[in-house]
Amino acid sequence: MGARNAKQERREHYQHQRQIPTRWRDNDVYHHINNVIYYEFFDTVINGYLMDAGGLDYRAGDSVGFAVETHCQFLQPVRFPEVVDACLRVGHLGESSVRYEIAIFKAGEESAAAVGYFVHVFVDRQTHQPVRIAGRLRRAVRALQMPER
Amino acid sequence: MGARNAKQERREHYQHQRQIPTRWRDNDVYHHINNVIYYEFFDTVINGYLMDAGGLDYRAGDSVGFAVETHCQFLQPVRFPEVVDACLRVGHLGESSVRYEIAIFKAGEESAAAVGYFVHVFVDRQTHQPVRIAGRLRRAVRALQMPER
Amino acid sequence: MGARNAKQERREHYQHQRQIPTRWRDNDVYHHINNVIYYEFFDTVINGYLMDAGGLDYRAGDSVGFAVETHCQFLQPVRFPEVVDACLRVGHLGESSVRYEIAIFKAGEESAAAVGYFVHVFVDRQTHQPVRIAGRLRRAVRALQMPER
Amino acid sequence: MGARNAKQERREHYQHQRQIPTRWRDNDVYHHINNVIYYEFFDTVINGYLMDAGGLDYRAGDSVGFAVETHCQFLQPVRFPEVVDACLRVGHLGESSVRYEIAIFKAGEESAAAVGYFVHVFVDRQTHQPVRIAGRLRRAVRALQMPER
Repeated sequence: MGARNAKQERREHYQHQRQIPTRWRDNDVYHHINNVIYYEFFDTVINGYLMDAGGLDYRAGDSVGFAVETHCQFLQPVRFPEVVDACLRVGHLGESSVRYEIAIFKAGEESAAAVGYFVHVFVDRQTHQPVRIAGRLRRAVRALQMPER
Repeated sequence: MGARNAKQERREHYQHQRQIPTRWRDNDVYHHINNVIYYEFFDTVINGYLMDAGGLDYRAGDSVGFAVETHCQFLQPVRFPEVVDACLRVGHLGESSVRYEIAIFKAGEESAAAVGYFVHVFVDRQTHQPVRIAGRLRRAVRALQMPER
Repeated sequence: MGARNAKQERREHYQHQRQIPTRWRDNDVYHHINNVIYYEFFDTVINGYLMDAGGLDYRAGDSVGFAVETHCQFLQPVRFPEVVDACLRVGHLGESSVRYEIAIFKAGEESAAAVGYFVHVFVDRQTHQPVRIAGRLRRAVRALQMPER
Repeated sequence: MGARNAKQERREHYQHQRQIPTRWRDNDVYHHINNVIYYEFFDTVINGYLMDAGGLDYRAGDSVGFAVETHCQFLQPVRFPEVVDACLRVGHLGESSVRYEIAIFKAGEESAAAVGYFVHVFVDRQTHQPVRIAGRLRRAVRALQMPER
């Protein structure tokens, strides 16, 4: 996804949305939300969705999702106390891995402040060996795929 | 404020309230919101209020609030994805300092998950010398004082 | 511990010391290490010591330490990329609880940049009921108590 | 840089190195350093270097570096209290932008735990318009470029 396409992302290109208010601590010395924090937004919208819709149980579930690759492009600064919408879709669903695509929009704005992706591999909690994404979790992830455009 | 009193704190004992959703990253190895994060809640409810109601301008204002003392008692664990209400009142307002009292309630619960305080000293941005809290900022802080009970 | 005493704290008043470099993200909009981060330093020096000297196993141990109360006074600002020494002693050791006292010194400075305390209660990992601090862990905590002055 | 190449990265492929100890708070619910934290390491090694070698002054300098794109692949888990080496080189230096490449190695290990990149655009602090990287800062960045292999 190039910088040009990133600017054309809209909320309706995503299946799921979570509102996240910024915090005082998110701002850095340049008075913007620090780049690191966008990945907190990614983690939050992804795992929040998986817990709600897919039955992910981070405390006792047999399989857990490990991050293997993440990426973000920063297009517009965000500042505390702004509120963002973290928008989520699935770009690719494999046997044991998922590639999520995320866009961050400031409340009331049409074009994205940031866009990125995040790849999860699901592994056995004990052995750390990849496991097939199955059942309710797979249905929840599949529901984040966009219809062909 | 002793542990016994802390458990008797209610939302109506506070003048201002801000809803803060937890984030995935707030959880620690024991699957609870880490103790450090409560202070992010404190900073957020205090500075958010001062910006909205008191005209605090962290980017260009002449005076800024420095933390000089903070404290928290942890009464009930909170976990992602729970949402908390951060409740705020002012316990003492001096010439250049304010002592805020904060309680954190989980959504839907009556007794506090944590209670604490936070002392700000307002200083000149350049010289770091204490300055009198005045005008709109003083009115906003005073509005957080509770009537005598 | 009052503000006056806090300024008189010296490294030799503490039994254990851990060097912690600051990070870019620790700085806040006022170009200082944010107040929240000092509690990251507290957590790090305490749990690091308990793991090294007391056999604390956060992944699989039967008992775990929950924070029940924390406090900090901020005396001198610290900025990235400064390095701090987090100094640790035990003020009180009960059956299942420990009160640690911590001071943060900037490298090369004699008086503390911050002083605080942190109270742990040790509980059973499953039931969350308090358990007696025993064996190697108790010996490690006791070794942090200062001789009478 | 594909996953295969990532595993072949060695410390000697980088011009600069900074040791960063992990903190208790870096661990997440799965008992590993959370993915977000690697970007704190990136920010720290990059800005630390620019301050030391390039005269970057985040408090008062005319130009500041804004993150425009970041990326990370996670190859091996890291846990508190492990210490990492954050290794830095420059992959591309443009008029106003720099693409840094970073690898994170656990102390004592030969292959990287994570590899990534980070793109800075230098802008005027007031107008946020891109400015040419010049003088001491340009020399410092150029010194991070690797000789042709």
